[in-house]
Amino acid sequence: MILLQVIKETFKRSFSTMHPKMVRYLGQKEAQSIDLELFDEYSFSVDQLMELAGLSCAVAVTKCYPQSKMGNKSIMICVGPGNNGGDGLVCARHLKLFNYQPIVYYPKRSDQQLFRNLTSQCTLMNIPVIQSLPEKSTIECEFGLIVDALFGFSFKPPVREQFIPIIKLMRDTTVPIASIDIPSGWDVETGPPEDAIKPDLLISLTAPKLCAQHYKGRYHYLGGRFVPPRLEEKYNLNLPKYPGTDCCVLLSQTKCSD
Amino acid sequence: MILLQVIKETFKRSFSTMHPKMVRYLGQKEAQSIDLELFDEYSFSVDQLMELAGLSCAVAVTKCYPQSKMGNKSIMICVGPGNNGGDGLVCARHLKLFNYQPIVYYPKRSDQQLFRNLTSQCTLMNIPVIQSLPEKSTIECEFGLIVDALFGFSFKPPVREQFIPIIKLMRDTTVPIASIDIPSGWDVETGPPEDAIKPDLLISLTAPKLCAQHYKGRYHYLGGRFVPPRLEEKYNLNLPKYPGTDCCVLLSQTKCSD
Repeated sequence: MILLQVIKETFKRSFSTMHPKMVRYLGQKEAQSIDLELFDEYSFSVDQLMELAGLSCAVAVTKCYPQSKMGNKSIMICVGPGNNGGDGLVCARHLKLFNYQPIVYYPKRSDQQLFRNLTSQCTLMNIPVIQSLPEKSTIECEFGLIVDALFGFSFKPPVREQFIPIIKLMRDTTVPIASIDIPSGWDVETGPPEDAIKPDLLISLTAPKLCAQHYKGRYHYLGGRFVPPRLEEKYNLNLPKYPGTDCCVLLSQTKCSD
Repeated sequence: MILLQVIKETFKRSFSTMHPKMVRYLGQKEAQSIDLELFDEYSFSVDQLMELAGLSCAVAVTKCYPQSKMGNKSIMICVGPGNNGGDGLVCARHLKLFNYQPIVYYPKRSDQQLFRNLTSQCTLMNIPVIQSLPEKSTIECEFGLIVDALFGFSFKPPVREQFIPIIKLMRDTTVPIASIDIPSGWDVETGPPEDAIKPDLLISLTAPKLCAQHYKGRYHYLGGRFVPPRLEEKYNLNLPKYPGTDCCVLLSQTKCSD
Protein backbone atom coordinates (compact mmCIF):
# COMPACT_ATOMS: atom_id res chain seq x y z
CA MET A 1 0.00 0.00 0.00
CA ILE A 2 2.85 2.38 0.78
CA LEU A 3 4.44 1.58 -2.56
CA LEU A 4 1.15 2.25 -4.33
CA GLN A 5 0.91 5.60 -2.57
CA VAL A 6 4.45 6.50 -3.64
CA ILE A 7 3.69 5.56 -7.25
CA LYS A 8 0.49 7.61 -7.20
CA GLU A 9 2.30 10.62 -5.73
CA THR A 10 5.12 10.37 -8.24
CA PHE A 11 2.65 10.06 -11.05
CA LYS A 12 0.69 13.07 -9.82
CA ARG A 13 3.82 15.16 -9.47
CA SER A 14 5.22 14.33 -12.87
CA PHE A 15 2.03 15.16 -14.63
CA SER A 16 0.91 18.14 -12.59
CA THR A 17 3.17 20.57 -14.43
CA MET A 18 2.80 19.00 -17.83
CA HIS A 19 0.84 20.55 -20.60
CA PRO A 20 -1.94 18.38 -22.03
CA LYS A 21 -0.61 18.84 -25.57
CA MET A 22 3.15 18.29 -25.43
CA VAL A 23 5.26 21.29 -26.35
CA ARG A 24 7.44 20.55 -29.36
CA TYR A 25 11.24 20.43 -29.15
CA LEU A 26 13.01 22.12 -32.05
CA GLY A 27 15.99 21.08 -34.10
CA GLN A 28 18.76 23.59 -34.75
CA LYS A 29 17.71 24.50 -38.29
CA GLU A 30 14.10 24.92 -37.26
CA ALA A 31 15.10 27.18 -34.35
CA GLN A 32 17.17 29.25 -36.76
CA SER A 33 14.38 29.60 -39.28
CA ILE A 34 11.85 30.63 -36.60
CA ASP A 35 14.35 33.24 -35.43
CA LEU A 36 14.80 34.55 -38.97
CA GLU A 37 11.06 34.65 -39.51
CA LEU A 38 10.54 36.71 -36.34
CA PHE A 39 12.94 39.33 -37.71
CA ASP A 40 12.23 39.19 -41.43
CA GLU A 41 8.52 38.39 -41.62
CA TYR A 42 7.26 39.82 -38.35
CA SER A 43 9.62 42.84 -38.41
CA PHE A 44 10.77 42.49 -34.82
CA SER A 45 14.08 44.12 -33.97
CA VAL A 46 16.76 42.23 -32.05
CA ASP A 47 16.52 44.95 -29.38
CA GLN A 48 12.84 44.19 -28.79
CA LEU A 49 13.03 40.42 -28.58
CA MET A 50 16.27 40.40 -26.62
CA GLU A 51 14.69 42.73 -24.09
CA LEU A 52 11.68 40.42 -23.64
CA ALA A 53 13.85 37.28 -23.62
CA GLY A 54 16.34 38.65 -21.09
CA LEU A 55 13.51 39.93 -18.90
CA SER A 56 11.87 36.50 -18.88
CA CYS A 57 15.19 34.93 -17.82
CA ALA A 58 15.52 37.38 -14.93
CA VAL A 59 11.95 36.59 -13.84
CA ALA A 60 12.57 32.81 -14.01
CA VAL A 61 15.74 33.26 -11.93
CA THR A 62 13.74 35.22 -9.36
CA LYS A 63 11.14 32.45 -9.14
CA CYS A 64 13.74 29.72 -8.55
CA TYR A 65 16.27 31.61 -6.42
CA PRO A 66 14.39 34.25 -4.43
CA GLN A 67 16.47 37.17 -3.32
CA SER A 68 15.71 36.32 0.32
CA LYS A 69 17.66 33.06 -0.07
CA MET A 70 20.70 34.58 -1.74
CA GLY A 71 21.99 36.28 1.39
CA ASN A 72 24.88 38.55 0.45
CA LYS A 73 25.84 36.42 -2.51
CA SER A 74 26.16 37.79 -6.02
CA ILE A 75 25.10 36.28 -9.33
CA MET A 76 27.73 35.77 -12.01
CA ILE A 77 26.36 36.19 -15.54
CA CYS A 78 28.67 34.49 -18.06
CA VAL A 79 28.16 36.32 -21.33
CA GLY A 80 29.13 34.78 -24.67
CA PRO A 81 29.98 36.56 -27.91
CA GLY A 82 26.57 36.28 -29.64
CA ASN A 83 22.87 36.81 -29.07
CA ASN A 84 22.72 34.38 -26.15
CA GLY A 85 25.22 36.69 -24.47
CA GLY A 86 22.95 39.64 -25.28
CA ASP A 87 20.06 37.92 -23.49
CA GLY A 88 22.45 37.54 -20.56
CA LEU A 89 23.31 41.25 -20.51
CA VAL A 90 19.61 42.16 -20.51
CA CYS A 91 18.97 39.56 -17.80
CA ALA A 92 21.77 41.06 -15.66
CA ARG A 93 20.22 44.53 -15.91
CA HIS A 94 16.77 43.34 -14.88
CA LEU A 95 18.25 41.27 -12.02
CA LYS A 96 19.84 44.49 -10.77
CA LEU A 97 16.44 46.21 -10.88
CA PHE A 98 15.05 43.21 -8.93
CA ASN A 99 17.66 43.99 -6.23
CA TYR A 100 20.13 41.18 -6.94
CA GLN A 101 23.86 41.83 -7.19
CA PRO A 102 24.82 40.70 -10.67
CA ILE A 103 28.41 40.67 -11.96
CA VAL A 104 28.97 40.16 -15.67
CA TYR A 105 31.85 37.98 -16.87
CA TYR A 106 32.29 38.92 -20.53
CA PRO A 107 35.53 37.46 -21.93
CA LYS A 108 34.99 38.19 -25.64
CA ARG A 109 33.08 41.39 -26.27
CA SER A 110 31.17 41.94 -29.46
CA ASP A 111 31.88 45.04 -31.53
CA GLN A 112 28.27 45.45 -32.62
CA GLN A 113 26.59 48.65 -31.46
CA LEU A 114 23.71 46.80 -29.75
CA PHE A 115 26.13 44.82 -27.60
CA ARG A 116 28.20 47.87 -26.79
CA ASN A 117 24.99 49.59 -25.70
CA LEU A 118 23.82 46.64 -23.59
CA THR A 119 27.23 46.60 -21.89
CA SER A 120 27.11 50.35 -21.21
CA GLN A 121 23.64 49.97 -19.72
CA CYS A 122 25.06 47.41 -17.29
CA THR A 123 28.11 49.48 -16.40
CA LEU A 124 26.02 52.60 -15.82
CA MET A 125 23.74 50.61 -13.54
CA ASN A 126 26.79 49.77 -11.41
CA ILE A 127 27.01 46.17 -12.61
CA PRO A 128 30.69 45.22 -12.71
CA VAL A 129 31.71 43.84 -16.13
CA ILE A 130 34.87 41.74 -15.81
CA GLN A 131 37.03 40.13 -18.45
CA SER A 132 39.11 37.66 -16.48
CA LEU A 133 37.64 34.63 -14.80
CA PRO A 134 37.71 34.67 -10.98
CA GLU A 135 39.25 31.71 -9.11
CA LYS A 136 36.94 28.77 -8.44
CA SER A 137 37.32 29.34 -4.68
CA THR A 138 36.24 32.98 -5.06
CA ILE A 139 33.22 31.93 -7.09
CA GLU A 140 32.19 29.27 -4.59
CA CYS A 141 32.49 31.80 -1.82
CA GLU A 142 30.90 34.88 -3.35
CA PHE A 143 28.33 33.68 -5.84
CA GLY A 144 24.96 32.09 -5.16
CA LEU A 145 24.18 31.44 -8.82
CA ILE A 146 25.87 31.37 -12.20
CA VAL A 147 23.79 32.41 -15.21
CA ASP A 148 25.13 30.66 -18.29
CA ALA A 149 24.56 32.94 -21.31
CA LEU A 150 27.53 31.70 -23.30
CA PHE A 151 26.15 29.86 -26.31
CA GLY A 152 22.65 29.63 -27.78
CA PHE A 153 20.88 27.64 -30.45
CA SER A 154 23.49 28.47 -33.13
CA PHE A 155 26.27 26.71 -31.22
CA LYS A 156 28.34 24.08 -33.05
CA PRO A 157 30.89 22.10 -31.06
CA PRO A 158 33.69 22.15 -30.14
CA VAL A 159 33.85 24.92 -27.53
CA ARG A 160 36.45 27.46 -28.56
CA GLU A 161 39.71 27.60 -26.59
CA GLN A 162 38.86 30.86 -24.84
CA PHE A 163 35.71 29.44 -23.25
CA ILE A 164 37.12 26.13 -22.04
CA PRO A 165 38.09 27.44 -18.57
CA ILE A 166 34.61 28.80 -17.82
CA ILE A 167 32.89 25.66 -19.10
CA LYS A 168 35.28 23.57 -16.96
CA LEU A 169 34.56 25.77 -13.97
CA MET A 170 30.79 25.48 -14.45
CA ARG A 171 31.18 21.73 -14.71
CA ASP A 172 33.13 21.48 -11.45
CA THR A 173 31.47 24.06 -9.24
CA THR A 174 28.80 23.42 -6.62
CA VAL A 175 27.20 26.80 -7.37
CA PRO A 176 23.88 26.19 -9.17
CA ILE A 177 23.76 27.10 -12.83
CA ALA A 178 20.89 28.67 -14.75
CA SER A 179 21.34 28.17 -18.49
CA ILE A 180 19.73 30.48 -21.02
CA ASP A 181 18.20 28.49 -23.90
CA ILE A 182 21.00 25.89 -24.23
CA PRO A 183 23.28 24.49 -21.51
CA SER A 184 26.60 25.76 -22.90
CA GLY A 185 28.74 23.13 -24.54
CA TRP A 186 25.74 20.86 -25.18
CA ASP A 187 24.93 19.94 -28.74
CA VAL A 188 21.71 21.79 -29.61
CA GLU A 189 20.12 18.54 -30.78
CA THR A 190 21.89 15.56 -29.27
CA GLY A 191 22.46 17.16 -25.88
CA PRO A 192 25.22 16.74 -23.31
CA PRO A 193 28.74 15.69 -24.29
CA GLU A 194 30.85 13.75 -21.81
CA ASP A 195 31.73 16.00 -18.91
CA ALA A 196 28.80 18.30 -19.64
CA ILE A 197 27.66 21.12 -17.40
CA LYS A 198 24.52 20.21 -15.47
CA PRO A 199 22.30 23.25 -14.99
CA ASP A 200 19.84 23.44 -12.12
CA LEU A 201 17.55 25.73 -14.15
CA LEU A 202 17.07 25.80 -17.90
CA ILE A 203 15.17 28.68 -19.47
CA SER A 204 14.20 27.70 -23.01
CA LEU A 205 13.41 30.70 -25.20
CA THR A 206 10.62 30.84 -27.80
CA ALA A 207 10.35 27.00 -27.70
CA PRO A 208 12.60 24.29 -26.21
CA LYS A 209 15.33 22.79 -28.40
CA LEU A 210 15.88 19.05 -28.81
CA CYS A 211 18.77 18.96 -26.32
CA ALA A 212 16.35 19.93 -23.55
CA GLN A 213 14.99 16.37 -23.67
CA HIS A 214 18.21 15.32 -21.93
CA TYR A 215 17.89 17.99 -19.27
CA LYS A 216 17.65 16.59 -15.75
CA GLY A 217 17.95 19.73 -13.61
CA ARG A 218 15.34 20.92 -11.14
CA TYR A 219 13.52 23.60 -13.09
CA HIS A 220 12.67 23.94 -16.74
CA TYR A 221 11.05 27.23 -17.72
CA LEU A 222 9.94 28.62 -21.04
CA GLY A 223 10.44 32.34 -21.66
CA GLY A 224 10.17 34.82 -24.50
CA ARG A 225 6.44 35.44 -24.59
CA PHE A 226 6.35 37.09 -27.97
CA VAL A 227 5.58 34.29 -30.42
CA PRO A 228 2.77 35.35 -32.79
CA PRO A 229 -0.02 32.70 -32.78
CA ARG A 230 0.32 32.32 -36.56
CA LEU A 231 4.00 31.40 -36.21
CA GLU A 232 3.18 29.03 -33.37
CA GLU A 233 0.66 27.25 -35.59
CA LYS A 234 2.95 27.12 -38.63
CA TYR A 235 5.63 25.28 -36.64
CA ASN A 236 3.18 23.29 -34.47
CA LEU A 237 4.93 24.59 -31.38
CA ASN A 238 2.09 23.66 -28.97
CA LEU A 239 3.31 26.25 -26.51
CA PRO A 240 1.90 25.96 -22.99
CA LYS A 241 -0.42 28.68 -21.69
CA TYR A 242 1.51 31.42 -19.91
CA PRO A 243 -0.21 32.19 -16.58
CA GLY A 244 -1.83 35.66 -16.46
CA THR A 245 0.65 38.28 -17.60
CA ASP A 246 3.72 36.21 -16.64
CA CYS A 247 6.59 36.36 -19.09
CA CYS A 248 7.75 32.82 -18.32
CA VAL A 249 6.03 29.51 -17.64
CA LEU A 250 7.16 26.38 -15.79
CA LEU A 251 7.48 23.42 -18.16
CA SER A 252 8.59 20.90 -15.55
CA GLN A 253 10.04 20.66 -12.09
CA THR A 254 11.66 17.41 -11.06
CA LYS A 255 11.56 17.91 -7.33
CA CYS A 256 10.09 20.48 -4.98
CA SER A 257 12.18 23.52 -4.27
CA ASP A 258 13.79 23.47 -0.84
CA MET B 1 -19.55 58.60 15.76
CA ILE B 2 -20.60 57.52 12.28
CA LEU B 3 -18.94 60.61 10.82
CA LEU B 4 -15.75 59.83 12.72
CA GLN B 5 -15.81 56.31 11.34
CA VAL B 6 -16.25 57.64 7.80
CA ILE B 7 -13.34 60.05 8.25
CA LYS B 8 -11.15 57.28 9.65
CA GLU B 9 -12.01 54.96 6.77
CA THR B 10 -11.38 57.65 4.18
CA PHE B 11 -8.09 58.52 5.82
CA LYS B 12 -7.05 54.86 5.93
CA ARG B 13 -7.99 54.33 2.30
CA SER B 14 -6.23 57.41 0.99
CA PHE B 15 -3.00 56.60 2.73
CA SER B 16 -2.95 52.85 2.34
CA THR B 17 -1.51 52.97 -1.17
CA MET B 18 0.74 55.97 -0.67
CA HIS B 19 4.49 55.70 -0.65
CA PRO B 20 6.18 57.02 2.50
CA LYS B 21 8.44 59.30 0.44
CA MET B 22 6.25 61.02 -2.14
CA VAL B 23 7.06 60.26 -5.75
CA ARG B 24 8.02 63.42 -7.62
CA TYR B 25 5.87 64.85 -10.43
CA LEU B 26 7.86 66.08 -13.40
CA GLY B 27 7.52 69.21 -15.50
CA GLN B 28 7.58 68.91 -19.29
CA LYS B 29 11.21 69.99 -19.75
CA GLU B 30 12.41 67.68 -17.01
CA ALA B 31 10.53 64.74 -18.54
CA GLN B 32 12.14 65.54 -21.87
CA SER B 33 15.64 65.74 -20.45
CA ILE B 34 15.23 62.43 -18.57
CA ASP B 35 14.08 60.86 -21.82
CA LEU B 36 17.10 62.26 -23.69
CA GLU B 37 19.44 61.06 -20.98
CA LEU B 38 18.06 57.52 -21.17
CA PHE B 39 18.90 57.43 -24.87
CA ASP B 40 22.09 59.51 -25.00
CA GLU B 41 23.80 58.74 -21.71
CA TYR B 42 22.47 55.28 -20.93
CA SER B 43 22.49 54.13 -24.58
CA PHE B 44 18.99 52.65 -24.50
CA SER B 45 17.27 52.27 -27.87
CA VAL B 46 13.72 53.47 -28.41
CA ASP B 47 12.81 49.86 -29.30
CA GLN B 48 13.94 48.62 -25.89
CA LEU B 49 12.23 51.21 -23.71
CA MET B 50 9.06 51.30 -25.82
CA GLU B 51 8.79 47.53 -25.46
CA LEU B 52 9.07 47.71 -21.67
CA ALA B 53 6.76 50.74 -21.44
CA GLY B 54 4.07 49.21 -23.65
CA LEU B 55 4.30 45.91 -21.80
CA SER B 56 3.80 47.67 -18.46
CA CYS B 57 0.71 49.41 -19.87
CA ALA B 58 -0.76 46.08 -20.99
CA VAL B 59 -0.10 44.60 -17.55
CA ALA B 60 -1.72 47.59 -15.78
CA VAL B 61 -4.77 47.25 -18.06
CA THR B 62 -4.98 43.54 -17.16
CA LYS B 63 -4.89 44.36 -13.44
CA CYS B 64 -7.70 46.92 -13.70
CA TYR B 65 -9.91 45.28 -16.35
CA PRO B 66 -9.49 41.51 -16.05
CA GLN B 67 -10.26 39.58 -19.19
CA SER B 68 -13.02 37.72 -17.34
CA LYS B 69 -14.95 40.99 -16.95
CA MET B 70 -14.61 42.07 -20.57
CA GLY B 71 -17.03 39.49 -21.95
CA ASN B 72 -16.89 39.60 -25.72
CA LYS B 73 -15.93 43.24 -25.81
CA SER B 74 -12.85 44.52 -27.60
CA ILE B 75 -10.35 47.16 -26.56
CA MET B 76 -9.80 50.14 -28.84
CA ILE B 77 -6.21 51.45 -28.75
CA CYS B 78 -6.10 55.03 -30.03
CA VAL B 79 -2.62 55.53 -31.42
CA GLY B 80 -1.12 58.98 -31.93
CA PRO B 81 1.63 60.04 -34.34
CA GLY B 82 4.59 59.95 -31.89
CA ASN B 83 6.23 57.82 -29.21
CA ASN B 84 3.10 57.71 -27.05
CA GLY B 85 1.44 56.04 -30.02
CA GLY B 86 4.35 53.59 -30.22
CA ASP B 87 3.77 52.62 -26.59
CA GLY B 88 0.15 52.02 -27.59
CA LEU B 89 1.11 49.73 -30.48
CA VAL B 90 3.31 47.66 -28.17
CA CYS B 91 0.55 47.61 -25.56
CA ALA B 92 -1.93 46.34 -28.17
CA ARG B 93 0.39 43.47 -29.13
CA HIS B 94 0.86 42.35 -25.53
CA LEU B 95 -2.88 42.65 -24.84
CA LYS B 96 -3.41 40.26 -27.74
CA LEU B 97 -0.94 37.82 -26.17
CA PHE B 98 -2.90 38.20 -22.91
CA ASN B 99 -6.01 37.04 -24.83
CA TYR B 100 -7.79 40.37 -25.19
CA GLN B 101 -9.23 41.51 -28.51
CA PRO B 102 -7.47 44.77 -29.28
CA ILE B 103 -8.29 46.94 -32.29
CA VAL B 104 -5.92 49.75 -33.19
CA TYR B 105 -7.29 53.10 -34.34
CA TYR B 106 -4.31 54.81 -35.99
CA PRO B 107 -5.44 57.92 -37.91
CA LYS B 108 -2.03 59.44 -38.73
CA ARG B 109 0.66 56.85 -39.30
CA SER B 110 4.32 57.65 -38.81
CA ASP B 111 6.75 57.01 -41.65
CA GLN B 112 9.55 55.97 -39.33
CA GLN B 113 10.75 52.39 -39.72
CA LEU B 114 10.17 51.55 -36.03
CA PHE B 115 6.53 52.58 -36.26
CA ARG B 116 6.04 50.76 -39.53
CA ASN B 117 7.46 47.65 -37.87
CA LEU B 118 5.31 48.00 -34.76
CA THR B 119 2.26 48.33 -37.00
CA SER B 120 3.23 45.23 -39.04
CA GLN B 121 3.68 43.27 -35.83
CA CYS B 122 0.11 44.15 -34.87
CA THR B 123 -1.32 43.33 -38.27
CA LEU B 124 0.49 39.99 -38.42
CA MET B 125 -0.88 39.14 -34.99
CA ASN B 126 -4.40 39.62 -36.40
CA ILE B 127 -4.97 42.93 -34.66
CA PRO B 128 -7.12 45.10 -36.95
CA VAL B 129 -5.53 48.50 -37.60
CA ILE B 130 -8.17 50.99 -38.72
CA GLN B 131 -7.85 54.55 -39.95
CA SER B 132 -11.38 55.88 -39.64
CA LEU B 133 -13.11 56.43 -36.36
CA PRO B 134 -16.07 54.14 -35.65
CA GLU B 135 -19.43 55.69 -34.68
CA LYS B 136 -19.92 56.45 -30.98
CA SER B 137 -22.78 53.94 -30.84
CA THR B 138 -20.54 51.20 -32.27
CA ILE B 139 -17.85 51.99 -29.75
CA GLU B 140 -20.29 51.94 -26.84
CA CYS B 141 -21.60 48.63 -28.01
CA GLU B 142 -18.45 46.78 -28.95
CA PHE B 143 -15.67 48.13 -26.76
CA GLY B 144 -15.11 47.52 -23.06
CA LEU B 145 -12.14 49.89 -22.84
CA ILE B 146 -10.41 52.62 -24.79
CA VAL B 147 -6.64 52.91 -24.44
CA ASP B 148 -5.60 56.50 -25.06
CA ALA B 149 -2.12 56.49 -26.60
CA LEU B 150 -2.55 59.71 -28.56
CA PHE B 151 -0.25 62.29 -27.01
CA GLY B 152 2.54 61.99 -24.48
CA PHE B 153 4.76 64.31 -22.45
CA SER B 154 5.82 66.34 -25.51
CA PHE B 155 2.26 67.49 -26.20
CA LYS B 156 1.62 71.21 -26.58
CA PRO B 157 -1.98 72.39 -26.96
CA PRO B 158 -4.08 72.89 -28.95
CA VAL B 159 -5.12 69.44 -30.22
CA ARG B 160 -4.66 69.29 -33.98
CA GLU B 161 -7.76 69.26 -36.16
CA GLN B 162 -7.43 65.59 -37.10
CA PHE B 163 -7.62 64.41 -33.49
CA ILE B 164 -10.54 66.54 -32.33
CA PRO B 165 -13.21 63.92 -33.16
CA ILE B 166 -11.50 61.15 -31.14
CA ILE B 167 -10.85 63.49 -28.20
CA LYS B 168 -14.50 64.57 -28.33
CA LEU B 169 -15.61 60.95 -28.48
CA MET B 170 -13.44 59.98 -25.50
CA ARG B 171 -14.87 62.93 -23.59
CA ASP B 172 -18.47 61.91 -24.29
CA THR B 173 -18.35 58.12 -24.10
CA THR B 174 -19.26 55.97 -21.11
CA VAL B 175 -16.57 53.42 -22.07
CA PRO B 176 -13.75 53.64 -19.51
CA ILE B 177 -10.49 55.18 -20.73
CA ALA B 178 -6.97 54.13 -19.86
CA SER B 179 -4.50 56.90 -20.68
CA ILE B 180 -0.85 56.19 -21.34
CA ASP B 181 1.38 58.72 -19.55
CA ILE B 182 -0.77 61.82 -20.22
CA PRO B 183 -4.56 62.04 -20.59
CA SER B 184 -4.68 63.26 -24.18
CA GLY B 185 -5.52 66.91 -24.59
CA TRP B 186 -4.39 67.73 -21.05
CA ASP B 187 -1.58 70.20 -20.59
CA VAL B 188 1.43 68.20 -19.40
CA GLU B 189 1.90 70.57 -16.47
CA THR B 190 -1.32 72.43 -15.73
CA GLY B 191 -3.62 69.49 -16.40
CA PRO B 192 -7.15 69.29 -17.77
CA PRO B 193 -8.58 71.97 -20.06
CA GLU B 194 -12.31 72.68 -20.00
CA ASP B 195 -14.12 69.67 -21.47
CA ALA B 196 -11.21 67.37 -20.72
CA ILE B 197 -11.26 63.61 -21.09
CA LYS B 198 -11.50 61.87 -17.72
CA PRO B 199 -9.57 58.60 -17.74
CA ASP B 200 -10.48 55.80 -15.36
CA LEU B 201 -6.86 54.54 -15.39
CA LEU B 202 -3.70 56.56 -15.83
CA ILE B 203 -0.41 54.76 -16.43
CA SER B 204 2.42 57.20 -15.82
CA LEU B 205 5.66 56.11 -17.46
CA THR B 206 9.13 56.53 -15.92
CA ALA B 207 7.71 59.05 -13.40
CA PRO B 208 4.38 60.89 -13.20
CA LYS B 209 4.13 64.30 -14.84
CA LEU B 210 2.71 67.39 -13.09
CA CYS B 211 -0.71 67.07 -14.76
CA ALA B 212 -1.24 63.78 -12.90
CA GLN B 213 -1.84 65.83 -9.73
CA HIS B 214 -5.21 66.77 -11.24
CA TYR B 215 -6.07 63.15 -12.06
CA LYS B 216 -9.22 61.95 -10.30
CA GLY B 217 -9.79 58.58 -11.97
CA ARG B 218 -9.92 55.25 -10.16
CA TYR B 219 -6.45 53.83 -10.78
CA HIS B 220 -3.09 55.49 -11.08
CA TYR B 221 -0.25 53.13 -12.01
CA LEU B 222 3.42 53.74 -12.68
CA GLY B 223 5.09 51.70 -15.41
CA GLY B 224 8.36 51.57 -17.29
CA ARG B 225 10.56 49.76 -14.81
CA PHE B 226 13.86 50.60 -16.42
CA VAL B 227 15.06 53.73 -14.67
CA PRO B 228 18.72 53.35 -13.62
CA PRO B 229 19.11 54.12 -9.89
CA ARG B 230 21.71 56.79 -10.69
CA LEU B 231 19.21 58.63 -12.90
CA GLU B 232 16.52 58.28 -10.24
CA GLU B 233 18.84 59.89 -7.69
CA LYS B 234 19.96 62.67 -10.01
CA TYR B 235 16.37 63.80 -10.55
CA ASN B 236 15.15 62.94 -7.02
CA LEU B 237 12.37 60.86 -8.52
CA ASN B 238 11.61 58.96 -5.28
CA LEU B 239 10.08 56.14 -7.26
CA PRO B 240 7.98 53.68 -5.27
CA LYS B 241 9.20 50.10 -4.86
CA TYR B 242 7.88 47.85 -7.62
CA PRO B 243 6.50 44.65 -6.07
CA GLY B 244 8.55 41.53 -6.91
CA THR B 245 9.20 41.33 -10.62
CA ASP B 246 6.10 43.38 -11.55
CA CYS B 247 6.60 45.86 -14.35
CA CYS B 248 4.04 48.32 -12.95
CA VAL B 249 3.11 49.56 -9.49
CA LEU B 250 -0.09 51.07 -8.11
CA LEU B 251 0.44 54.69 -7.06
CA SER B 252 -3.10 55.32 -5.88
CA GLN B 253 -6.58 53.97 -6.12
CA THR B 254 -9.43 56.28 -5.20
CA LYS B 255 -12.08 53.69 -4.64
CA CYS B 256 -12.26 49.93 -4.57
CA SER B 257 -12.66 48.14 -7.87
CA ASP B 258 -16.13 46.77 -8.41
